[in-house]
Amino acid sequence: MNMYDILLKKREGEELSAEEISFFVQGFSRGEIPDYQASAFLMAAFLKGLSSKETVELTQQMLLSGDSLDLSEIEGFKLDKHSTGGVGDKTSLVLAPLLASANVIVPKLSGRGLGHTGGTIDKLESIPGFQTDLPMERFLEQLQKIGFGILGASANLAPADKALYALRDVTATVDHPSLIASSIMSKKLAAGADGILLDVKYGEGAFMKTPEEALLLSKMLVEIGEKSGKKTRALISSMEAPLGKAVGNSLEVREAMDALKGEGPTDLQELCLTLATQGLLMSGQMSEEEKARHLLVEKIRSGAAFEKFLQFVREQGGDLDAMPKEKEAAVFRAPQSGVVRRIHALPVARAALSCGAGRRKKTDAIDPGAGILLHVQEGDRVETGDILAGIYTHREEAVSEAQALLKDSFVIADTVALPSPMIYGTVYYEKGESVFSPMKGKING
Amino acid sequence: MNMYDILLKKREGEELSAEEISFFVQGFSRGEIPDYQASAFLMAAFLKGLSSKETVELTQQMLLSGDSLDLSEIEGFKLDKHSTGGVGDKTSLVLAPLLASANVIVPKLSGRGLGHTGGTIDKLESIPGFQTDLPMERFLEQLQKIGFGILGASANLAPADKALYALRDVTATVDHPSLIASSIMSKKLAAGADGILLDVKYGEGAFMKTPEEALLLSKMLVEIGEKSGKKTRALISSMEAPLGKAVGNSLEVREAMDALKGEGPTDLQELCLTLATQGLLMSGQMSEEEKARHLLVEKIRSGAAFEKFLQFVREQGGDLDAMPKEKEAAVFRAPQSGVVRRIHALPVARAALSCGAGRRKKTDAIDPGAGILLHVQEGDRVETGDILAGIYTHREEAVSEAQALLKDSFVIADTVALPSPMIYGTVYYEKGESVFSPMKGKING
Repeated sequence: MNMYDILLKKREGEELSAEEISFFVQGFSRGEIPDYQASAFLMAAFLKGLSSKETVELTQQMLLSGDSLDLSEIEGFKLDKHSTGGVGDKTSLVLAPLLASANVIVPKLSGRGLGHTGGTIDKLESIPGFQTDLPMERFLEQLQKIGFGILGASANLAPADKALYALRDVTATVDHPSLIASSIMSKKLAAGADGILLDVKYGEGAFMKTPEEALLLSKMLVEIGEKSGKKTRALISSMEAPLGKAVGNSLEVREAMDALKGEGPTDLQELCLTLATQGLLMSGQMSEEEKARHLLVEKIRSGAAFEKFLQFVREQGGDLDAMPKEKEAAVFRAPQSGVVRRIHALPVARAALSCGAGRRKKTDAIDPGAGILLHVQEGDRVETGDILAGIYTHREEAVSEAQALLKDSFVIADTVALPSPMIYGTVYYEKGESVFSPMKGKING
Repeated sequence: MNMYDILLKKREGEELSAEEISFFVQGFSRGEIPDYQASAFLMAAFLKGLSSKETVELTQQMLLSGDSLDLSEIEGFKLDKHSTGGVGDKTSLVLAPLLASANVIVPKLSGRGLGHTGGTIDKLESIPGFQTDLPMERFLEQLQKIGFGILGASANLAPADKALYALRDVTATVDHPSLIASSIMSKKLAAGADGILLDVKYGEGAFMKTPEEALLLSKMLVEIGEKSGKKTRALISSMEAPLGKAVGNSLEVREAMDALKGEGPTDLQELCLTLATQGLLMSGQMSEEEKARHLLVEKIRSGAAFEKFLQFVREQGGDLDAMPKEKEAAVFRAPQSGVVRRIHALPVARAALSCGAGRRKKTDAIDPGAGILLHVQEGDRVETGDILAGIYTHREEAVSEAQALLKDSFVIADTVALPSPMIYGTVYYEKGESVFSPMKGKING
């Protein structure tokens, strides 16, 4: 077997065998297959596609290239959660304590963000003293004690994926469903949970632009997970508008705390409850959706979910009282009266990035308090001069750029449009295949 | 402009601008664009194709990456010749002296072979003392004096092509018409002649498997040449059977000398006369095909063409009298009586390689006297036990392998088949496009 023949086969659109995919991934991982052959493979795979079998095999081989966490000593159902990422997505900060309060263990490894806003780790690090690099032993103790924890992903999980991703990033081969799916799942499989709950987003603020693309990716993700022996489900949700009102690290932590108290934007609450319901059903503790949802609502109402979050922050060394107040440098006002018909996610994200909430390159420092705080959401009625958003930044020069971007973001019209559904549906696995169940009657706002 | 966006554009099948192709080729040539981006580009170009405009631009940018020979001080029409390569292809050794004897200057730069048999340089080096690395000044003097010369291509011609070819060779992106055409023409354009005559071969012993593929490539080659300001024509010829009877370096030199004397296999004579006729017409000295051909036949009959060859060998230091006699180690005999219906080129080439006539890897040494000498050609009648081929080698262990390969090569049948035409047609340029003129009535044998 040699890499040339594998390239030839993929170039001709033929299906590679398990042995051939293993030869490529392990050879590349050991440095025996050079980058130039790997990038030719990635382009051929991008243009000729990978079958479902090839995608599962690619994932498992990337998984095998590194370590896997062993969580077997922790009792109970361990659920990992992954979002494909979006603007203002602080779901993990709400979901993990909420599920933990309902006896689902959530051992979550997260990354830092590169792009408009920080990742979950960046958000948590806006809390003074918060530690995201605990030793694994300490992390396992915490899981045992309070049922969840969030750690920076520093372990040697799926290193082949990391190396291949670096190549994809510079060879225009990132945005292919099979390559995205195998990349996500190789890391999730390595993280050692019993189940994987995926939040797959579509829309202008997401990787996938349409619900159809998100559905295709979701089916792949679920199939890979289940074929690798993990309970896996995916929720497909909209990322046309920012999620909630806060975009920026400490602003989002505050909004997540509001949601855990049953306050704050309803779209965020709805998404977190829907995800948590699926997670609780996956754990096998309950089998009826309505009952599971009711239990979770109770956990919020009783304060148990919020209490979990406070415990978690204390366990990982954070001091919420020491969080500095964000500096509102300017506001953006409504240029006309009417109804907020659209809040485009992408310009809001760019405005937050200008303010200092994200990184343009890996070495950039994040300003934890920077970002955009929306005062309205889609469907709200506004009068000329009303404040639509606050601009939080220490960079004076960012204000005018943020103003211009926010102007692009808001569409104000005379008439109300029917809001589009925030949750498109769920993908689960049944009788050996991924099945789509469309969401009915639950709409944004 | 950046390489990522160029990759993205080619991945989506869009046509690149001249500036984008220049950015890629020159950036890669300067080492600023890494191999892994170049190989992703090659795979995307392979799978999405390059337009005629892109192919011309790629060629010219590879040409610009290095030096070009300046032959302006040599008077007369300078014609370069290139064959896409085949088994037993000693055409250059016949064509160059033949054309020089008819006042067409042939300044030829040739390469060594990697594969079944040696390249033109390897063939010439089977003549003791023959120098293929003359200084350029000395080479120009020789062109002035005797009208032709053959030199090893050591100058810095189209180095970007060389580097890209090395990548194509290990990423399964060699056999694409646009990439083949630009590679061939970038070097030919750099060699400084006024006209380029191409011998494009198809069949099992060639790169292109069918006449249709060869025609597509020929049209590209001619278009690139003409759009770059060179008179360019292509002859399309068959490479199903070996050309002539000799396959191996010194064996082929002897056969070429026979052809220059009007002796030896008729297929070789016919191909050389047809190519030379086109070359003479291209030079503008004559305009009627029949008259041009007649003049060339006269040059052979009078001994002028062969005399040119002898002059050439002396000029470049070779001593024909010192050529050792090849050692016939064994013969291959007809297993049955009948008519030789096919002599498959590929097993003959492999047998010659086993004997030591070619290189499996760059560092292999060639045995100049090794090879296969056919005693018959397609269409000949044979009896059981007749000698079909001589096996020339110093490697005893190669004999049985060569026997087995020759057994695969010969197809002997009871009935005679109509021989397929050796020359398929000519491609020339007229009114801004490549035009195909099928060859009529001239058949092999």
